[in-house]
Amino acid sequence: MAHQHPKEFWEERARLNALVFRYAGQATKRFFRLDSQVYEEGALPRKTKELMGLVASLVLRCDDCIRYHLVQCYRSQVSDPELEEAMAIGLIVGGSIVIPHLRRAWQFWEDLKREGDPSKSTEGHGGIQD
Amino acid sequence: MAHQHPKEFWEERARLNALVFRYAGQATKRFFRLDSQVYEEGALPRKTKELMGLVASLVLRCDDCIRYHLVQCYRSQVSDPELEEAMAIGLIVGGSIVIPHLRRAWQFWEDLKREGDPSKSTEGHGGIQD
Amino acid sequence: MAHQHPKEFWEERARLNALVFRYAGQATKRFFRLDSQVYEEGALPRKTKELMGLVASLVLRCDDCIRYHLVQCYRSQVSDPELEEAMAIGLIVGGSIVIPHLRRAWQFWEDLKREGDPSKSTEGHGGIQD
Amino acid sequence: MAHQHPKEFWEERARLNALVFRYAGQATKRFFRLDSQVYEEGALPRKTKELMGLVASLVLRCDDCIRYHLVQCYRSQVSDPELEEAMAIGLIVGGSIVIPHLRRAWQFWEDLKREGDPSKSTEGHGGIQD
Amino acid sequence: MAHQHPKEFWEERARLNALVFRYAGQATKRFFRLDSQVYEEGALPRKTKELMGLVASLVLRCDDCIRYHLVQCYRSQVSDPELEEAMAIGLIVGGSIVIPHLRRAWQFWEDLKREGDPSKSTEGHGGIQD
Amino acid sequence: MAHQHPKEFWEERARLNALVFRYAGQATKRFFRLDSQVYEEGALPRKTKELMGLVASLVLRCDDCIRYHLVQCYRSQVSDPELEEAMAIGLIVGGSIVIPHLRRAWQFWEDLKREGDPSKSTEGHGGIQD
Repeated sequence: MAHQHPKEFWEERARLNALVFRYAGQATKRFFRLDSQVYEEGALPRKTKELMGLVASLVLRCDDCIRYHLVQCYRSQVSDPELEEAMAIGLIVGGSIVIPHLRRAWQFWEDLKREGDPSKSTEGHGGIQD
Repeated sequence: MAHQHPKEFWEERARLNALVFRYAGQATKRFFRLDSQVYEEGALPRKTKELMGLVASLVLRCDDCIRYHLVQCYRSQVSDPELEEAMAIGLIVGGSIVIPHLRRAWQFWEDLKREGDPSKSTEGHGGIQD
Repeated sequence: MAHQHPKEFWEERARLNALVFRYAGQATKRFFRLDSQVYEEGALPRKTKELMGLVASLVLRCDDCIRYHLVQCYRSQVSDPELEEAMAIGLIVGGSIVIPHLRRAWQFWEDLKREGDPSKSTEGHGGIQD
Repeated sequence: MAHQHPKEFWEERARLNALVFRYAGQATKRFFRLDSQVYEEGALPRKTKELMGLVASLVLRCDDCIRYHLVQCYRSQVSDPELEEAMAIGLIVGGSIVIPHLRRAWQFWEDLKREGDPSKSTEGHGGIQD
Repeated sequence: MAHQHPKEFWEERARLNALVFRYAGQATKRFFRLDSQVYEEGALPRKTKELMGLVASLVLRCDDCIRYHLVQCYRSQVSDPELEEAMAIGLIVGGSIVIPHLRRAWQFWEDLKREGDPSKSTEGHGGIQD
Repeated sequence: MAHQHPKEFWEERARLNALVFRYAGQATKRFFRLDSQVYEEGALPRKTKELMGLVASLVLRCDDCIRYHLVQCYRSQVSDPELEEAMAIGLIVGGSIVIPHLRRAWQFWEDLKREGDPSKSTEGHGGIQD
């Protein structure tokens, strides 16, 4: 999995989401909407939910999902120690097979802290699942 | 997966953990300790961590892991709506394949509310990862 | 995984689905609806879709999901050779780890052929995802 | 997972399959043959089987497997709506974790429609599992 | 997953394998043969291969597969410390999600040591993948 | 998954492990130590353990984990036929979904044989999990 900076990741994601929606039937569209809805503020705060999405993505070993939730954690002002504790849960539950994803996650987190919220400078792409 | 009441589950788990420890080498023992350590209160509250463990167990579809974290959620006084929101994240991330585990999770939750903390009446078994 | 006859399976599933719905928030309810919607007759016939659901359930190794789609395949009058070819795809894609599920799937199929559609005699339970 | 055009994908696949066969023992060779055999026309049409292979690859989240079955679906003249309905089943069964693969799948499908069957212009490579 | 003694496990497995073979097409039958072939003595000793099968079954969390390889490990005179070291690899690679399977594996191993090779007293069932 | 030569892989891995350790809490550090410990010479020889790690990585389909264990297998002087037999077990247990990883594994093995142990020329990076 090649290194991908947050801005690149965000733009590619937006471009391909638009492509999915060009073909998408009703069920696919509805599922995408649900996928935003479950992370909204509710009985549990949004920050907690994004960290849950991150842990789930780690144990299922999906780099793109991890990156997406890291962007949302960054926006929700998750601290380094909070992130590390969530990552440690993902590591212990998922085992050493999670390690390569952990490595790339921290690299992406460093990029995020250096380069900032990738959605800020992405004009006109957003819209879907944002 | 047959229906198993919280008390049965807890006692079988304690009995078999003791068996694992009879054979366990140093690495296995250390891993079991880590598995307790990552859920301890820290930058993130214990309750949040147990909910994360629950979501990870749901998407990985492990009934026994789900039950263990449900007991811990019960002890941490997770409310029904908090639990439902965590479950909904697990469902959307993991897909319909999670549904059978969701069904059994709610049944176990109902049992917990009716029958109470299974560790309370389990004397002399606890000890390991408790 | 203990042997479960189609009728038992169907009734337990209906009973626990009702329990899920007692707690379910909007997202969970909507997901359940989508889960029915994607198998409806469309550009692809319903029978093909149920066989796809079966293959997906096999490679993800979910016995309850397999049973659900076997009931639907039975209702859609899938023949033995059609079923075997779908199972063989699941086996080759998913590997030997699929074999225990294959064994239980054929046992359930035999039960279905002998005992008939389990939903026929299940009055008043259906409703959800049916 | 970097963008890979159908022709590149097809050639790399053929080149590496040849490498596998240089080392392969009898069991590996036989498995590769089975892997072709299960998609052959039978009680179920080849097109249906390729769509099943696609859904299985989606829920198991294997980009290369998805690409291979997309090439075969293209050759079997699967229509856009048929493909979308199969993808929607993979999405609902496998959950949001499937989305990144769905995105890349549609991009590959667009490439296929624009650039045509990649095997047509690949001389001398084919042979294995083709 | 209810407790199942080695003899029960072995007999049910034989009975259901026979059922699979009643429906099986050529590809399924060939796959079953390959599944025996890869564990045969070769450049690597049979004992090593059975331990590999066990580790693979652990990280994929398949109780029936674990049981099958435990029977073969027992026949190959794997020692307790050898088994523990293999289990520890499965645990570290696969994470805490493996623990419930580890528990049931040691219980089955204890049964095997107490009750002996389940295939010895199973007359007339063997034959398939034995 | 782009082609990555052993030396590149090894250096990136060392660089990112160092990053993980910059953030790592105690549990994460301890887990990394366990992850080295379980492959050490014991009741089972180190070579056997690395092959087990390889098979586990194959069936869990983790390219980076496969590469790591291939480097260790190379150092432990695993022969081509031994490697092939281990790979064949991974293939049969994990199914056709393993094939893309098998292809990349053999390519990496060829690179290793041509380019030698990547850790030999990597000065000052090692240290962690080495």
